[in-house]
This record gives sequence, C-alpha cells and structure tokens, in this order.
Amino acid sequence: MATQQLATWAVNLQYANFTAPVIAAAVTSLYNWAGCAIGGYQQTAPGIALNATSPHFGGPPTSSILALANDSTQTDAQIAAFINGIAGHVDDYDDTHLATIIHPTGTVASALLAVAEWKGGVNGSEFLTAFIAGVEAELKLGLSVWPQHYDVGWHDTSTTGSIGAAVAVSKLLGLDVPTMQQAIGIACTQVIGMQEFFGSDTKSFHIGRAAQGGMIGALLAQSGFTSSLQGLEAQFGWVHVVSTRENVTAEFDTLGQSWEILSNTFKPYPCGIVMHPSIEGAIEVQSTALGKGLNMSDITSVQARVNPETLVLTGQTDPETGLEGKFSVYHGIAIGLLFGEATPSQFTDAIVTNSTVVALRKLVNVTTDASVREDEAYVSALFKDGTNVTQHIDHVIGSLDNPLSEAQLKTKFIGQASLVLGEARAEKAYEAFTNIGNMSDVSTIAQFLIVVGNSALQYDYANLRS
Amino acid sequence: MATQQLATWAVNLQYANFTAPVIAAAVTSLYNWAGCAIGGYQQTAPGIALNATSPHFGGPPTSSILALANDSTQTDAQIAAFINGIAGHVDDYDDTHLATIIHPTGTVASALLAVAEWKGGVNGSEFLTAFIAGVEAELKLGLSVWPQHYDVGWHDTSTTGSIGAAVAVSKLLGLDVPTMQQAIGIACTQVIGMQEFFGSDTKSFHIGRAAQGGMIGALLAQSGFTSSLQGLEAQFGWVHVVSTRENVTAEFDTLGQSWEILSNTFKPYPCGIVMHPSIEGAIEVQSTALGKGLNMSDITSVQARVNPETLVLTGQTDPETGLEGKFSVYHGIAIGLLFGEATPSQFTDAIVTNSTVVALRKLVNVTTDASVREDEAYVSALFKDGTNVTQHIDHVIGSLDNPLSEAQLKTKFIGQASLVLGEARAEKAYEAFTNIGNMSDVSTIAQFLIVVGNSALQYDYANLRS
Repeated sequence: MATQQLATWAVNLQYANFTAPVIAAAVTSLYNWAGCAIGGYQQTAPGIALNATSPHFGGPPTSSILALANDSTQTDAQIAAFINGIAGHVDDYDDTHLATIIHPTGTVASALLAVAEWKGGVNGSEFLTAFIAGVEAELKLGLSVWPQHYDVGWHDTSTTGSIGAAVAVSKLLGLDVPTMQQAIGIACTQVIGMQEFFGSDTKSFHIGRAAQGGMIGALLAQSGFTSSLQGLEAQFGWVHVVSTRENVTAEFDTLGQSWEILSNTFKPYPCGIVMHPSIEGAIEVQSTALGKGLNMSDITSVQARVNPETLVLTGQTDPETGLEGKFSVYHGIAIGLLFGEATPSQFTDAIVTNSTVVALRKLVNVTTDASVREDEAYVSALFKDGTNVTQHIDHVIGSLDNPLSEAQLKTKFIGQASLVLGEARAEKAYEAFTNIGNMSDVSTIAQFLIVVGNSALQYDYANLRS
Repeated sequence: MATQQLATWAVNLQYANFTAPVIAAAVTSLYNWAGCAIGGYQQTAPGIALNATSPHFGGPPTSSILALANDSTQTDAQIAAFINGIAGHVDDYDDTHLATIIHPTGTVASALLAVAEWKGGVNGSEFLTAFIAGVEAELKLGLSVWPQHYDVGWHDTSTTGSIGAAVAVSKLLGLDVPTMQQAIGIACTQVIGMQEFFGSDTKSFHIGRAAQGGMIGALLAQSGFTSSLQGLEAQFGWVHVVSTRENVTAEFDTLGQSWEILSNTFKPYPCGIVMHPSIEGAIEVQSTALGKGLNMSDITSVQARVNPETLVLTGQTDPETGLEGKFSVYHGIAIGLLFGEATPSQFTDAIVTNSTVVALRKLVNVTTDASVREDEAYVSALFKDGTNVTQHIDHVIGSLDNPLSEAQLKTKFIGQASLVLGEARAEKAYEAFTNIGNMSDVSTIAQFLIVVGNSALQYDYANLRS
C-alpha cells in the first residue's frame, strides 16, 4: 500500500500543515539551488545539453533556464527542467540530506519550477507545498532503501528524485490519489543514475533526466495513461528491483510527523561532501602554518585521517578535469593548503592540472578510520624544518551541527549568481528566490533574472530558437 | 574493456560483413515491427502519449509517427521515437529473441528511423548496418545478464534497448570509438522498465522512453558531453548495478561470429509469448471439436499443462482490460476455444469483459510442468457429453522451429496496417518496408504511409501542432 499511502499524504498535504522552520528550510533549499543553477551554467555541461536538444526538440517557450532567463531564451518545460537540473548540480554545490547523501532540491525544483512557469497562476504557498511534498517523498523513499540501494552503485539523488518530481508536479497539477499513484508508477519505471558517472558531465545529467522523467509521469497520468497502483511496493516494482532492503511503509508512516527537509544541509565547497572535513582541515592547516611564518612550498608530506566513505566516493588520486577534481580528496586537501579556500575557481581544469597543485597532491596520504565520523577529519602537514601542523575538524562547516549562516548562504548565492547575472541582478535574483513563498504567481520569477548580453556564457543565443 | 570492445566492433561493422540471411532477418524484423507500430496506434496509449507531449514539447517536424505519417503530422525525432516505440509494442505483437525474451527491434528501430528521417541522406545499407549493430549490442548484452537481471523484475527489452539504440544512432551518426563509448555510458545510466507495469500502458512506454534515452546519449556524446569509457563494466556501471551475474566480455567475443538476429522470431498472436502454445492448443481443440459436431458452449472444464514460466508472466486469472488480457493465459485459452483465432480483435476491453468469455475463462485450469518446454503445451477440453478433446503443441507456430512463413508475415502486416492506412496504402507500406535495404534515402519511407482522413484513429489531428 506504500504507493497509495504516499499519494494520499501528498494529495492531502496543505500549506497550513507546515511549521515555520519547515517553510524556512524549503525556501533556503530553493534559493541555494537557484544560485547553483545560475552559477553552474559556467560549466560546459548545461550548454552542451541545451545546444544538443533545444534547437531540435524544443517546443513553444514557456519556461526559464535560470542562467539564461529572459523572454527570448525561454524554452519548453521539459528542456528547462533538463537544463536547470544539470546546471544546478554540475558544480556539486547544491544541498545534501546527510542521512542518504541525496541532494534533494534539484530534481524536484527543476521539474516544478518549469511546470509552474508553463501553467502559470501558481502562488508561492502552492509552490512550496508541492515542493515539500516532492522532497519528503524522495527522502523518505531514500531512507527506506539506504544504504543497500546506494552501495550497489545507484546515484540515489536521481533514482529517488524522479519519484519526488512526479509527486511534486502531480501535486501542483491537482491530481487525485489514484492518478498520482499512476504518475508515481511511471516515475518508478525510469531509474536514472549510477555512481560510475561521478566526475563526468553525466552526473548532473542524472538530475536533469530524472526531473524530466518525473514530470512526464505526472503529465501522462493526468492524461489517463496507466501504469500501476503499486509501482513502489509490488514484487517487480521499484523498491524490490533496486534494493535488497526496504522498509518503505515504515518510513512513509512518518510522513508529516518528522520532516526530512529540516535535515537538509548546504555546502560550503563545490565538491563531494565527504571530502569537506578534509578541505576545512587543510584550510585551517594553511591558516595556522602561515601564522607561524611557514611557507606552503616547504611541505614535505601531508597526512589525513578520514571516515572510510571518503575514499569510496572521493578517492581519485589523479584527477584530470575540474569535474574529476570534485571527487578527489587529494585535490581538495591540496587546494585547501595552497589557496586557503575551495570555491568553483579551484575546481577548473586549469587548477586541477596545474603543476604546483599536482605536486602537492602527490604528497598527500589519506588513511581511513571507522571511528572518524563523516563530518570529521584530521589533517596534518609536515614542513622541511620538521614542523608538523595538525588540525582536527570535529563538525565540518555546512554540517547539521555547524550550518552555514544566512549571511554565508547569501554570500554563496551572490558569488555564484553574479558570475552569470552580474552583481546587481544577482541581488535581485536573491530577493526573488528568498521571497518565493510570498509570490502571487511564481512564473513572474523569471523577470528578476533577465540577462542582458553576457559574454561570459558559452551558449550560442542565435542558435537557440532556430 | 567491454564498452570499448562493443564500440570498436560497432564502429568497424560494415554492410559487407553480413550474410544474406542476416540481412533478410533484419528486413523481416523491421517490417514486422513497422506493421506493429502502425496497427498499434489503434490502442489508446500512443495517442495519449502524443497529446500529452507533442503540443507542448515538440520541436521542428522532421520525423514520422508511422501511423500518422504525412507532411502535416511529422514531429521531432525525440517524439517520433517515443510514439513509434510505444505503438510498436503496445499490442505485444512485435518480435522476440527467445533466449532473452527481448523484443529487440522496437527500441533500436524507433530511435534509428526517427534520426534517419531527421538527418536525411541515409541509404538502406547504412540504415541496416546501424540497425543490426544496435540489435546485436542489446541482445549480446541481454544474454550476458540472463536470467538474473530479468528474474529480479527488470523488463530487459527496454533496459538493454536504450543501449542498443545508443549504439545504432551512434553508428548512423558516424561517431568514433571513444565517442560511442561515451554514448553507451549515457544510455547505461538510464535504466528503463520493470515487469510490474506489464498489462498497462507503461509497458510500451518502456520502449519509447528507452529509444529516447539511447538517442539522447548519442546526440550528447556527439556534442562532447562526457560520461565514462567503462559504462558497462565498471564496478558501479550498468552490468554490476543491474545484475548479480555478468559475462559481458564473453558474449561480446562472439559479436560478428554468431548473429543473434538470426534467432529473432515473430509472433502469430498479440500477447505474451509464453502463452502462445496454449492459445494454439486451444485453437486446435476448437477445430477438432467443431469437426466432431461439438458445441463450445457445452464445455464443462478445460485443462492446460504448460511450462512454469507461463504462469509467472501470464498468470492473470481475472484480466479487466485488453492490455491485461495479453498477460492472461486463461484469457488466451478462452478466446482460442471460442473464436478459433487470437488477433488484436480478441484483446479489446470489450472481449476481455464479455460474459461468455469470462464464463469460459473461469473453467480453465492451468498446471505447470518443468518438463514441458516453453514452445510446448497440452490443452484439453471436457464437454457435457463426456467427450474429452486434447491437443499437444510440440513447437508452437512462430517459434524458431516453426516460424511464420513469408506469406503469413505479410498477412500479419497487412492485417495490422490496413486497420489504420486502409488496404491499398497498407500494401504500399509493405512494399516500402520490405524494400528498405535498397532505398537510396530511407527518409523517403514516410511518403508510402500517407494517411488521408482516417476516422478510425482516436488521435485529435487539430491538436497536434497547436
């Protein structure tokens, strides 16, 4: 009955059910994602995907690609969801639900915003209600199959995300319970995302494609297309096919009682989250070493002791591209020591292949220790003169116990968005997304993002609507 | 190295490598599928899918929906592949590779024909070469994970089919080996299709969506989008994530040595293939009984002894729709006994819920016997007067040992296509598809299919390009 249970909860969900912290967490999740979806457009993946699809497969323009939002560059809702989904994840800078390592906002928001713009007349409360329904759906589902589903190699952000997107879009469209069950079924049968593709353009493709898959599920179900009323729990349905463990009914029993979105966290660094404590440790080591008058070029070896999952997910020793660098704890430690920061600028192809960075990376030795938590790390650097500088990160910044402040989140947003929109429009975009819950029509949001001739973009405007 | 091995083989494949039987099998596979894709449009699923997508997400018209092919109803290649994929499978009347129960043509042909029409200038030899490359890829891959992958609940037709479609479209586009590897990777990470959705519209959605997924993989890779060079064999890649068993290198070693397309079979009945022997048995029982002057309304009980897989896949005792009837051996036996045939007309909602059919269905008892082969069945009917009529089907019609003749295949094609195109155009379509290997430009094929005002179609023409 899990599918019916989920659909029943989502159909009955109302804005009045939310506490203030739930609403605040939803708004933060959305604007943090929007900043990523704007800034992420500086990577090549979203532009390649847009050029390969929109001129050939784009329908009437109704929806915004956030980084390109203006009247002449809107596209259809399917392509907008696809491109925003890619752009919002490509920097590995979006949000994280730590218990499942799911990045929950991208799939749901990409689909939902595109449909809200297309359909029009969706107010902020309706939008947030649908968004929270989708996020809770994917996260409860993710918990129900964790960690077996992840351990076999699935990228659970997208495998659960298409179902979250289907729930959110179905909610926005006002589908009834059995119709939403059919939509969930169509989403269930499209399982997108494997970990082999981490470090390539395809990792962010997962989010865009899952958003499309969930959206098409809702639209087909709305039109009477049949799938199954038990897409999740049936013997040959989602849960049993993709996981050796499930307790989906138990997790769904907590829907509306415990809100997973309250456990959502926001990254200080644009890379795999399990390497964040090591990066913060390296940054602290640099700060201390510089304070002692040491020179970072005198480092002779670096030791890090980390949670075992760190090497499973970010164990690349010799990354060759910026995207690969996002999955190399060795790279993360090296740039932390050299630059004292880890921003998108330290995860470019040029920095990843820079000879100084590469040389320091080769001095980094990482050992794993199951007693070290995932938000914890020990980093030490040995210098030529025999000095050893060690730092212990107990709760990494960005973790639940040490979250980014509102000011830090704003700085992060402006830092990303201004790269594409310029400073003034980035401020406007920040105002718009932080105010999304109060809008009378969410489709007006694109007006805040209008780009006027930004030469930094790799996208060929002339080609878009040919 | 499996991904590279597959791509290397496909890139180097030439028309001259094919024996005459391989070419003949490819052409038969294609025209058998085309008949299904035309006739299948009488079901509701393709029209619902078209109406839910094309008006909103359809790009410039370049490619044909076979049942609707004429200048004003072309759509873009993604939507054409989607709709032809659905229409070609919705009747469960397409081809079957018995060793994997994969229906190989739908995914590959849907994607390939749409791209060939879009790009233009593809001759028949090039088209067949790309088609065979895709079919061999998906079937060798299917063999490498059979039966574990299927037994867990995946619909292997579509899970392997997206990869076959990626190989075929990549071949048509002339991608080099590493680029085709990237395309295969993008297809790998989109796993479409679970058995829970058999008997619903979503079963055929699997084929359309997998065709789209493979096509987008090839197009993105062509544009420089990265995925992985080891999408199939990597620890967290396709083979290990979706199956507990793999021997993909061993299967790929036989590429070009043994041709799987030579083992492709064509269905005499539009339903799950494992119930075919029972249907033929029932038809034979009717023929014998009528010859003895018996009345089918005097049947008091029916016994069938079948291979165990029959009840696993077609064990529905109380189907309520035409699509569900396709997965009910009980329905198949009932209509065989009552109508002496099993055509699309016996798998409508009306016939499945007809009281005479339902009453006879309830008299059918099916037992399984592992010593009965999958192409074998025993069916017997007991009549009021005590007469027992029994038939043993040793090799069901349509099996490798008892294939449909060319004349029977033509009758099947015309029977399907004439429902939509009318008799005269159905003949033309038959000529076109059987001649596809000799065409100088495959994109001209749509000219043979032009529909002029066919009121039998449920599709709303006026709405298509609004």
